[in-house]
Amino acid sequence: MYTIAVDAMGGDAAPRVEVEGAILAARSYPVKILLVGRQEILRRELAEHLADDVPIEIVNASEVITMDDAAAKAVRNKRDSSIRVAARLVRDGRAEGLVSAGNTGAVMATSKIVLGTLPGVTRPALASVFPTLKGTAAVLIDVGANVDSTPQMLTQFAIMGEAYSRGICRQERPRVGLLSIGEEEHKGNDLTRQATPLLKELPIRFIGNVEGRDLFSGEADVIVCDGFIGNVALKVSEGLVETIKFLLQDSLTATVTRKIGYVLARTAFDDFKSRVDYSEYGGAPLLGLKGVCIICHGRSNPNAIKNAIRVAMEFAKGKVNATIESALHGRRSEQVQIAGD
Amino acid sequence: MYTIAVDAMGGDAAPRVEVEGAILAARSYPVKILLVGRQEILRRELAEHLADDVPIEIVNASEVITMDDAAAKAVRNKRDSSIRVAARLVRDGRAEGLVSAGNTGAVMATSKIVLGTLPGVTRPALASVFPTLKGTAAVLIDVGANVDSTPQMLTQFAIMGEAYSRGICRQERPRVGLLSIGEEEHKGNDLTRQATPLLKELPIRFIGNVEGRDLFSGEADVIVCDGFIGNVALKVSEGLVETIKFLLQDSLTATVTRKIGYVLARTAFDDFKSRVDYSEYGGAPLLGLKGVCIICHGRSNPNAIKNAIRVAMEFAKGKVNATIESALHGRRSEQVQIAGD
Repeated sequence: MYTIAVDAMGGDAAPRVEVEGAILAARSYPVKILLVGRQEILRRELAEHLADDVPIEIVNASEVITMDDAAAKAVRNKRDSSIRVAARLVRDGRAEGLVSAGNTGAVMATSKIVLGTLPGVTRPALASVFPTLKGTAAVLIDVGANVDSTPQMLTQFAIMGEAYSRGICRQERPRVGLLSIGEEEHKGNDLTRQATPLLKELPIRFIGNVEGRDLFSGEADVIVCDGFIGNVALKVSEGLVETIKFLLQDSLTATVTRKIGYVLARTAFDDFKSRVDYSEYGGAPLLGLKGVCIICHGRSNPNAIKNAIRVAMEFAKGKVNATIESALHGRRSEQVQIAGD
Repeated sequence: MYTIAVDAMGGDAAPRVEVEGAILAARSYPVKILLVGRQEILRRELAEHLADDVPIEIVNASEVITMDDAAAKAVRNKRDSSIRVAARLVRDGRAEGLVSAGNTGAVMATSKIVLGTLPGVTRPALASVFPTLKGTAAVLIDVGANVDSTPQMLTQFAIMGEAYSRGICRQERPRVGLLSIGEEEHKGNDLTRQATPLLKELPIRFIGNVEGRDLFSGEADVIVCDGFIGNVALKVSEGLVETIKFLLQDSLTATVTRKIGYVLARTAFDDFKSRVDYSEYGGAPLLGLKGVCIICHGRSNPNAIKNAIRVAMEFAKGKVNATIESALHGRRSEQVQIAGD
């Protein structure tokens, strides 16, 4: 039985979505949920769902960081925010991980302060998991925690992403690619050209440059990039999926014959939607922390929260952090050796 | 009647695709085509298509730059390449524009050398035109001509993209956005933060930061970014469209009922495909040159070549270059004035 802390005040439709997601998870998985937020509000919300039978406990937090709050300031000033209380539960060993759909900047800053980073990690990085055409899952890292990354930071992203792919996506020897604008080594920008020789030295299966289309091709299991690039790639994908859904619906209801076709094909559409629906993939793990933290989209629905709770459980179970630590530790001892030669 | 030079040796399936595209264009639009490449090969290819009735003329070029050639070296050494001869036709006023599906690096370098840049333009930039949910077209610039751009270069991209949107996409007062990772001004990387105050000073309708999803939302008519970012965004989109097509087909032919639905809905799919099909949008204009140059995907089909020829005609007709020149000239005189104050 795992225990996961859920920041119940974060998302755009908080706390309704978080409470419903927590109930779904507690009914589907062997998990106990600590719902963190304003006690009286959460008690009322829970009561509405007749969920006395599920293992959910409320933990009070008097403050809320909103989407409009400047992250750095809010983290400094709101010491009893639901995000912070949830992070403390993880730090103190009362929960194995935390899930939040709140202000991404505030969640990242808070968990870094409260949980601390793994030895050898300069900066935690946000990963996103994509379905590929080969049926595998690809890990894109970083998708927004760090901009203007250095080549050294990209090597850490590679090690963390690789550990996640092994522990969670069940890839035995993940192929790690560097996101660039051409497959040849010299194609790219200053950052990718400087990072390439460093990535080659790592004890991972580095396959060189990959391109934007490879996010979905399955040619790489881990795709490394600066957080600005990764965030743009992620949001372009989200925008395009929405656009295509809209255009398809529009095309498919234009005439009566097409409408009939649409009705007959509807189950197929539902299938398809679940395969490209980001809520199925359950949030982005923040890697490199002494603890487990899953960040969800502010617009998450209950299903997305439920899946994020599942991902947090798998993350804790997969011992991703131990793998990251030993990979980085191995590297550090190696570097010391080289320096001592 | 316009005259467009088509590099017939460039694409992955050259010269077949180029010749077929040229014939399609010459039959659809008031245009004369100069097909540039190895005379004997092109003559044979043309003869197979019984196209004696269409205004197509062959111009000989003895050399071919391949996709595998290193662009810089090929441009230096192959002085009689089809790309170079096509660019000379434009420079010498024998054609209003050129279209190539060849080695993108070589096309960019050659047209910069042969045609030269407009006064005030430091670096030509590649634009890509996207359909949006509002039915308008959005211009993304730069999509790969320049990496590690300076803030000043982004201001030139903004001016060129704005002129293109006005001249070709018929937007009267295009809204120009800066591609970043959050709408607030402080969100982004060093480049976007430094570019923002410069973009605000331009005589354009600058709307601040936009996000990846806005490529398709129609909230901005012109989206400015460094070429590395733009290229990743473009290739992520292409990859995702292909992935979704594949997944849909897969879902829709899984059972007999769904197959019937698929057949009934097929015309809708064709509709939809034409709305997201990049070949319909006909290539990417290279802006900032003294002349018109449209670069197509190496994997272009004849329809894409035909549409690129149409875009080249519209580009020449829309006097985009005159607009860019006067916008940059206006800025320069203004700067001189300010400097003289």
